[in-house]
Amino acid sequence: MSAETPKPAKVMVGPADLRALVQGIFQARGARAADAATVADALVWANLRGIDSHGVSRVPRYLELFDKGESVADAVPAVERPRAAIAIIDAHAAPGPVALTVAADEAIRGAREAGVGWATVRGTVHTGAIGYYTSRVAAAGMGAIGVVAGVPNMGYAGARGAAVATSPLSVAVPAGRHELVLLDMATAVMALGRIAQLKAAGRELPPGVATTAGGEPTTDPALAAVPVPVGGAKGAGMSLVFEMLASGLAANPIVPAYHSGSKEGRRHRQNAFLLAVDVSAFLPLADFTTTIDETVDAIKALPPADGTAEVLVPGERGRRSEAERGASGVPLGPKIWRELSEIATSLDVTVPVPLA
Amino acid sequence: MSAETPKPAKVMVGPADLRALVQGIFQARGARAADAATVADALVWANLRGIDSHGVSRVPRYLELFDKGESVADAVPAVERPRAAIAIIDAHAAPGPVALTVAADEAIRGAREAGVGWATVRGTVHTGAIGYYTSRVAAAGMGAIGVVAGVPNMGYAGARGAAVATSPLSVAVPAGRHELVLLDMATAVMALGRIAQLKAAGRELPPGVATTAGGEPTTDPALAAVPVPVGGAKGAGMSLVFEMLASGLAANPIVPAYHSGSKEGRRHRQNAFLLAVDVSAFLPLADFTTTIDETVDAIKALPPADGTAEVLVPGERGRRSEAERGASGVPLGPKIWRELSEIATSLDVTVPVPLA
Repeated sequence: MSAETPKPAKVMVGPADLRALVQGIFQARGARAADAATVADALVWANLRGIDSHGVSRVPRYLELFDKGESVADAVPAVERPRAAIAIIDAHAAPGPVALTVAADEAIRGAREAGVGWATVRGTVHTGAIGYYTSRVAAAGMGAIGVVAGVPNMGYAGARGAAVATSPLSVAVPAGRHELVLLDMATAVMALGRIAQLKAAGRELPPGVATTAGGEPTTDPALAAVPVPVGGAKGAGMSLVFEMLASGLAANPIVPAYHSGSKEGRRHRQNAFLLAVDVSAFLPLADFTTTIDETVDAIKALPPADGTAEVLVPGERGRRSEAERGASGVPLGPKIWRELSEIATSLDVTVPVPLA
Repeated sequence: MSAETPKPAKVMVGPADLRALVQGIFQARGARAADAATVADALVWANLRGIDSHGVSRVPRYLELFDKGESVADAVPAVERPRAAIAIIDAHAAPGPVALTVAADEAIRGAREAGVGWATVRGTVHTGAIGYYTSRVAAAGMGAIGVVAGVPNMGYAGARGAAVATSPLSVAVPAGRHELVLLDMATAVMALGRIAQLKAAGRELPPGVATTAGGEPTTDPALAAVPVPVGGAKGAGMSLVFEMLASGLAANPIVPAYHSGSKEGRRHRQNAFLLAVDVSAFLPLADFTTTIDETVDAIKALPPADGTAEVLVPGERGRRSEAERGASGVPLGPKIWRELSEIATSLDVTVPVPLA
């Protein structure tokens, strides 16, 4: 596809319809109704927030993992609580949204009792957008930190090839008048999904986002093979220590297994941790959210740099997308819409009528 | 000073001598012996690790803060423990190393009891190198996360001028055969101290590290005014949410006070949080440190990119500096050495004989 090809029109689907579709597919593939609803809510949330790479386009991949036995639709995550403030959730290969929603609730539970709660997730697949889980914690009046570790797909400062994962970091903080503040960032300069889009379109990449397989910086979409970590050693270092904390505490190391060259070591799997800190143990929640509102106001009132219309805080763009798409529907590419429709039809799940 | 001026020779001082000098100065200015020793150990540690901007060159600034009453040499940090896993340390304007060492020990205490421990520090000054405290937690067999929030001195994506602080993030993880893995990074592209050095030397800055006061990118040392956050919105967003968690939970907001334009709002002060997670609550510590060793080995065995002799893990460069400077002494610029000597002499503190 050349850059000149006009973009095919998007199919607009109502969010409730899209959730019902995804829930129906997962239930038909063996998930319990509540778990299927959780997966649907997490994926459609990502679409609503404008993070389409982590939305319903992932559905076929989950089904492929079910087919291979690498994920289990009706797995029941097992929760251990060795001490008051920590929980270890063995996902037993449940889809990420199922395992991480359990983890968020366990982190909240630990924080209510002990002030802070840490939940480690062992052995899940595709978590989707991690901001979904930190938002859930923040909605309970808590600060949240979340990290996911996965199979290496990003470079490492000074090395060739894929070395570490684009392990995302998310931090969510409850606000008052304002929406919660939500940082959700990969440790790569540019999201993998965006690089893949540019490569698929044959469009030149911006400098500094990818290297060739040999480790040379490139802007050539045909040669770009490895995403570059943000800030060089900083992003690479963050990804590495996130792997150590997420996978090390889960007793399920990914990076050394991957580089051992074994086939098993390259199998898709993810570990994670979520942390909740209960604001009300420190100060009244209303005092805290007033501070967060005032901090947001101070940032929004900064003089914009040339070429910037408005200074934004983390999560603000996503919230606007959510408002807009919540009203007008989620735009889906014709290919993924066709794929989802075919999957649904083959499983006797009703395909909703698009809005446009 | 032009770029052609030869660098003046460094004065080499033995680390134990340097600690004794700094401890003597702080004791003479009213600090208790143990607190003075803590400050000395933290600052000399930074010099040993090669982070000279956070080392003994900060001593005159602490004394200035004592003079102004903005820091109190013999302040006793007060510890509250509202729930099992959290501690709130009111520093009462004690120097950072005193308050953050208390916080590290309180985080460890919380983690031993509840599995994870969170310590919030309210109202300290200059913490020095935050890796010192996360290393202390890791030495207790725990994973550590630390963040410091301070007065805005860095840009924010899309805004002009200083908006947020270069709030550092540190993560430390205990290893077995290897030294602990220690990430310690500012949220700016380039450390402030390094920018100041280049500006003082009149040397051109690399592109992308600073803007003018008006928000224009610049490499001109005379025009560079505001450090740029790493990864644009990513570094800016990290700094902002770190301020929200560190200062918000401390009930001591810095960013909104700073932008209110009040003189009080621009006064130097810092808040922080340290988190400890007790590995032994998850799995035997030896199993965890074996995983960390294997992860380090996997990274070190990666094929180096062109122009790179060796792939490094976070903290490795600092550890080598520590070994080298521990043996050969800490190199100090003649200006700071003269300043420290004059301060010591004026306080009847013995000035050690340099090694060279």
